[in-house]
Amino acid sequence: MLGAATPALAAAVTRAGGIGFLPGSKDATALGEALKEAKSLIGDYGRSAKLPAQQDCIPVGIGFQNWAADINVAIEVVRAHHPAIVWFFAPEHSDHLEEWASRIREAGNGSTHIWVQVGTVQEALDAARLARPEVLILQGTDAGGHGLVKSASIISLVPEAADALAMADCGEIQLLAAGGICDGRGVAAALALGASGVVMGTRFLASQEAGISEGWKDWLLRADDGGSSTTRSTLCDRLKTTVGWPEHYDGRSLIGQGHHDEKAGMPDQDNVTLYKEEVKAGNAAWGEHGRQVAYAGTGVGLLREVLPAAEIIANVQEQASDVLIRMAI
Amino acid sequence: MLGAATPALAAAVTRAGGIGFLPGSKDATALGEALKEAKSLIGDYGRSAKLPAQQDCIPVGIGFQNWAADINVAIEVVRAHHPAIVWFFAPEHSDHLEEWASRIREAGNGSTHIWVQVGTVQEALDAARLARPEVLILQGTDAGGHGLVKSASIISLVPEAADALAMADCGEIQLLAAGGICDGRGVAAALALGASGVVMGTRFLASQEAGISEGWKDWLLRADDGGSSTTRSTLCDRLKTTVGWPEHYDGRSLIGQGHHDEKAGMPDQDNVTLYKEEVKAGNAAWGEHGRQVAYAGTGVGLLREVLPAAEIIANVQEQASDVLIRMAI
Repeated sequence: MLGAATPALAAAVTRAGGIGFLPGSKDATALGEALKEAKSLIGDYGRSAKLPAQQDCIPVGIGFQNWAADINVAIEVVRAHHPAIVWFFAPEHSDHLEEWASRIREAGNGSTHIWVQVGTVQEALDAARLARPEVLILQGTDAGGHGLVKSASIISLVPEAADALAMADCGEIQLLAAGGICDGRGVAAALALGASGVVMGTRFLASQEAGISEGWKDWLLRADDGGSSTTRSTLCDRLKTTVGWPEHYDGRSLIGQGHHDEKAGMPDQDNVTLYKEEVKAGNAAWGEHGRQVAYAGTGVGLLREVLPAAEIIANVQEQASDVLIRMAI
Repeated sequence: MLGAATPALAAAVTRAGGIGFLPGSKDATALGEALKEAKSLIGDYGRSAKLPAQQDCIPVGIGFQNWAADINVAIEVVRAHHPAIVWFFAPEHSDHLEEWASRIREAGNGSTHIWVQVGTVQEALDAARLARPEVLILQGTDAGGHGLVKSASIISLVPEAADALAMADCGEIQLLAAGGICDGRGVAAALALGASGVVMGTRFLASQEAGISEGWKDWLLRADDGGSSTTRSTLCDRLKTTVGWPEHYDGRSLIGQGHHDEKAGMPDQDNVTLYKEEVKAGNAAWGEHGRQVAYAGTGVGLLREVLPAAEIIANVQEQASDVLIRMAI
């Protein structure tokens, strides 16, 4: 959600009863400014906060891709601003979670919670042992953006991880399901599987507050049949010449011209050249015959309109309630 | 479920309140015998049948992989034995569903229902239009055995297909979810997503009645972390020198030595030779360092014991009820 997750989006999500997140950064000043902006936009939310009692925290989280992040920057920001949550994802080695967790907890003076995103049962067990997080995010293969090259969907990942964590005396860790959830039916399903809640990314890309181009948003609304219109690949990293993702990660995105050309045998070098040229075209570069990189999960086919984040949350909550009532009858 | 789905398993599933299936065959006599055996094992089920009123039908279904099946054999068997359901999967071209459906309906004199298994929203719409089935099985990428190379999990596939079918005036078709469901949590999740019920394959591989080797069953129980221990590939077909699957299909299986060797660069020819040699080893050929082909879905990590099919169904139903009650409170 880098770029998409503006202070306005994070604030809107938190104000609507969710928990908004900001993307981590190696620039402590910029990250501090973003947190302050989110705090200002949230305003007097604190008086009716639904977050666990975390005194003096800014009621949003920050997400770090550990492999690419600077722990000292993270610590500086947490110490100065006390975000409610720091979210870890994709350490180069899972062992790194231990240092990150202990130092962030210390910087947050005990009031900043640790959430860790994982994609397999083994990763969940490792993260539970190493970081003792308050929350584990179980990311299934439907998720948009980066994730494991190989994983189950949340259909089997959540119940199997829940059982394994309970067996390992880690049953107190709250589980959130991520990947393919764009509406209240997905939320109700996640609860049935044993999650306490969900993480939605793709759904909020199609929010008014998301800081992405109109071309990307339009493509999200046009796309359907999410299992067919998206694919997992490292191509997007190669096109953007992003280097350093641990090799067991790739990303799910909408399938564009770069994917078609790669399949037809085009070497990366040519694909990158064409990509760099086309991104100058602005909104026209987005689409199945465009070359822009549009991360999206398989739930993309469920998106029908761009809405304010607060409306998305209200709709999802209402639909989830309806589903739970229908099933109980 | 070819081989696994014995008349004993089909009968046990039907007797326990599910609907058992037999694998199709090009041998009408053998298929007729299997149906008669299932009917005999089911016994007086008819008096308390939970299946839709289908007079004079044998209360089990037959599944055909259309690309490999002989429509005349199917018609002969349906005309002679009236199975309650004929299930279509993997036609070489979706258009073939139209002829299959109309001719099977005629042979079944209107009382044999048509179910079609699909893996994308587009396939669901095509099948609905061409075959007008009573049921569509929506198979997600977690499913064991053959399925689409590329598809979403049921988390997004079921709700998106449900919406698209409703928009296409096909909302009367019942939807069953398949892929990754091995317990009552998965069933409750499928209902939340909009399915009327579920299809379970892998869970019944670990049933007493399943006609597979003990080596396969033992491996199913040993395997965990289903997203890591299984993979989608065409390797199993190549090892077994199965030829003819339409190219957009592969299969999910447990990862064995053949997969490791392929990854290390072993040519198919050598892998096939080693496979053929090792299958002679019997149960010892099954395992992550064995070469036997063990289809399984990502739910494999949820399997803890081999049980009678009736007990599996009772457990799953009880757990699903518990989940629905817990969520309603």
